[in-house]
Amino acid sequence: MLLPALADLRAGNSDWVVFIRSAATTIAFATLILLATNGANCRFSARLGFLLTVCLWVTGCVLGAMPLYFSRLPLSLAAAIFEGVSGITTTGATVLTGLDRLPRGILLWRSLLCWIGGIGFIALALLLLPSLRVGGIQLFNMESSDRAEKVLPRVNQIANGIIIAYLGLTLLCMLSYFAVGMTMFDAVNHAMTTIATAGFSTHDASLGYFSKTPSVLVIATIFMLLASLPFILYVKLVLPERSRRLADPQVVVFLVIVLVASFALAIWLRFQFGFSFHHAFLDAIFHFVSVITTTGYAAEDYLLWGPFAIGLFFIASFIGGCAGSTSGGIKINRLIILWRFTRVAMTRLLSPNTVVKVRYGGTDISGDLAQTVLLFLSLYMASLVIGAMLLSFTGLDFVSAFTGALTALSNVGPGFGDRIGPDGNFSTVGDAALWILSALMFAGRLEIVTVIILFTPAFWRK
Amino acid sequence: MLLPALADLRAGNSDWVVFIRSAATTIAFATLILLATNGANCRFSARLGFLLTVCLWVTGCVLGAMPLYFSRLPLSLAAAIFEGVSGITTTGATVLTGLDRLPRGILLWRSLLCWIGGIGFIALALLLLPSLRVGGIQLFNMESSDRAEKVLPRVNQIANGIIIAYLGLTLLCMLSYFAVGMTMFDAVNHAMTTIATAGFSTHDASLGYFSKTPSVLVIATIFMLLASLPFILYVKLVLPERSRRLADPQVVVFLVIVLVASFALAIWLRFQFGFSFHHAFLDAIFHFVSVITTTGYAAEDYLLWGPFAIGLFFIASFIGGCAGSTSGGIKINRLIILWRFTRVAMTRLLSPNTVVKVRYGGTDISGDLAQTVLLFLSLYMASLVIGAMLLSFTGLDFVSAFTGALTALSNVGPGFGDRIGPDGNFSTVGDAALWILSALMFAGRLEIVTVIILFTPAFWRK
Repeated sequence: MLLPALADLRAGNSDWVVFIRSAATTIAFATLILLATNGANCRFSARLGFLLTVCLWVTGCVLGAMPLYFSRLPLSLAAAIFEGVSGITTTGATVLTGLDRLPRGILLWRSLLCWIGGIGFIALALLLLPSLRVGGIQLFNMESSDRAEKVLPRVNQIANGIIIAYLGLTLLCMLSYFAVGMTMFDAVNHAMTTIATAGFSTHDASLGYFSKTPSVLVIATIFMLLASLPFILYVKLVLPERSRRLADPQVVVFLVIVLVASFALAIWLRFQFGFSFHHAFLDAIFHFVSVITTTGYAAEDYLLWGPFAIGLFFIASFIGGCAGSTSGGIKINRLIILWRFTRVAMTRLLSPNTVVKVRYGGTDISGDLAQTVLLFLSLYMASLVIGAMLLSFTGLDFVSAFTGALTALSNVGPGFGDRIGPDGNFSTVGDAALWILSALMFAGRLEIVTVIILFTPAFWRK
Repeated sequence: MLLPALADLRAGNSDWVVFIRSAATTIAFATLILLATNGANCRFSARLGFLLTVCLWVTGCVLGAMPLYFSRLPLSLAAAIFEGVSGITTTGATVLTGLDRLPRGILLWRSLLCWIGGIGFIALALLLLPSLRVGGIQLFNMESSDRAEKVLPRVNQIANGIIIAYLGLTLLCMLSYFAVGMTMFDAVNHAMTTIATAGFSTHDASLGYFSKTPSVLVIATIFMLLASLPFILYVKLVLPERSRRLADPQVVVFLVIVLVASFALAIWLRFQFGFSFHHAFLDAIFHFVSVITTTGYAAEDYLLWGPFAIGLFFIASFIGGCAGSTSGGIKINRLIILWRFTRVAMTRLLSPNTVVKVRYGGTDISGDLAQTVLLFLSLYMASLVIGAMLLSFTGLDFVSAFTGALTALSNVGPGFGDRIGPDGNFSTVGDAALWILSALMFAGRLEIVTVIILFTPAFWRK
């Protein structure tokens, strides 16, 4: 909060006081927690893990929303919380309009929220969720469990590696943006929201603002892709003895999906709309990557590209990037596991007594994992349906309600339809809808299971 | 085919020749098959079961389409096949307009297709699919497998029981329609398409044609509900020693869903549109039942009822009725199994070593079943997505493509949007789209797995 305070102070904006007050509140709050829990020695359990994760993220959202609520922006509580949740969950959906004229402190704060939310989620996904066995990601745990004696001393090493990779990518991205002509302020902000696959921009037109410099789109595409690969990959790159484990099937499948879909979309744009192929391919890959990595930047209103394009973007909103990155959605590893179990289940229909092992990334995976993936998918679908129904009850039209729930749950950002599409934002949906969307973004970020389990009677039973 | 020939002959319509010719072709074809397979003694295997099922249904669709194609109706091959598939799969989507003026033979033939397709599917679902272990339905197999020595002599008894129930319900439905003022011809046709949960009507306005007799809607609602309960229930009713097994959780859950949703929808209609509550409840329950049982009758354009109503109908298109009936969709038993496995999986996240048994209808079910349900759901979703993409590629708008694929795959009938909604039909979507939709209806009817497995390399391996 001190960084935006500084930015505001330098620009002579009186909101710096709000940031300083928020910082003071945060410090006071943190001190209270420290004092209250000092000396308590609590045994770690799955229950505690879930509770801790949810509390941590709630705290993040509330503290993130605080400066927005108390600033001079005319935001309702629902809108401020929505913007805070959207930042921390790296969704990048916004209720703010006139971004180009907003004080720099607020803009910087929004980007920082995404950036902190991003690294926080990677840490969660790689270091805590595996031991909670939440949805597919325990693979990384299994991968290392065959060297159990080496795991604990490695946790620090891995954590450091991830932080270095995250910082390094952000820096590289910022310099690239700056090199092609962005102002330093824009470059810093966009680098943070690119690497967090969040999609907040400092301009209402999002990256369309830089339409005269197509290289901005190229850089954005490259870094969105890099940011939605599993970050453990970058750590492995510098830990030589692990390099033979480099081949994570996620990466290959993800890149193939991106290339095939972008190519198909480019051909569609070429022949249906007469774009030059060069222009079509850049537009196609940038927007497809923006959606599938759940970033949500837009340079044009891609909803005008006809039903085939809309269909592709719709599917991409479900898919998401690789597990262990900042992107949301169902994620590639789950889809691969689903595909492999589906194949095995079909083979077993034909010859029931065959024992077929399902492998993933060089490891045998158990039937339990099929159930974990099933658990995630059913909760994902249930949340989507219930969210869409609640949203439609607040008066949203069917397309906005359904795709709004989808884009929130997958942490993408823009939905479909005129109101909440890439050309619009969430400022007109009303407070009730904002609360529902905030809940969906929150649940989506924490892999849904982590949140819903708190509402089961079993969780609170002694 | 002789029945519509008689109807046409009596009405002096020259199409009776077409039906006679089609009948002759069918008999010739059947004789050839009989001769070709005479004396062949083939051991039953899962492979053979899948192949047989698919071939049987393909034959039904082709023979069903034949009289339509050769009649005086100006139908393309794609349109005739679509109408035939739509009938046999009890979908009830039509490409025909001006139904009120169509020759009686054709109208009767369409209804007969549905009716035969309905009883065919119940037989398949209860007698063949269980031994192929396709998606959830093996429950009925398990239920009886604990009395294995008694199963075989019972198959005949059960088959007879089902046929009697099906005939009885159709007769009862026909008499009820007739009693409230339908002509005998309308009563016969609508009774057949009601009990088959198909939804073909003899009028362009569907049941809206009878808007002056609301009791038609009441009768339709009751018989659609009866027809989407598991038919084994009716057999059990007359086999006294099995009556303690009456409680199939599907029935209760299904009826609760119907009542709660209809009630919510009625309240919505009451307060958003000012319907009287009596009128609102009848309209709500009739249309909701029509969609969730995958019948697809309409008395009004329910897409005008606002986003909440559209959302409910959208979800109902996924859900479908009970397994072991004529209705399509995901089906209640799969959803119950999914819900129970989800609960168990959540409990196991908290205490990984607990052994929790999942029960369904008084029987323990295995983890294998979770995988079978997972298999069905992933194939269902994949077919939906691929179908929607292909449809959008033929030029359909996004909503028509997506809900068209959904309504075909779930065998409902009407989609959403102006073109293919309850107020429209499939006459304008083009031949390419009709082929895709026919494939989706076909796959949806045979529980998808049965069809897709034929396209796996494992199926054709020696």
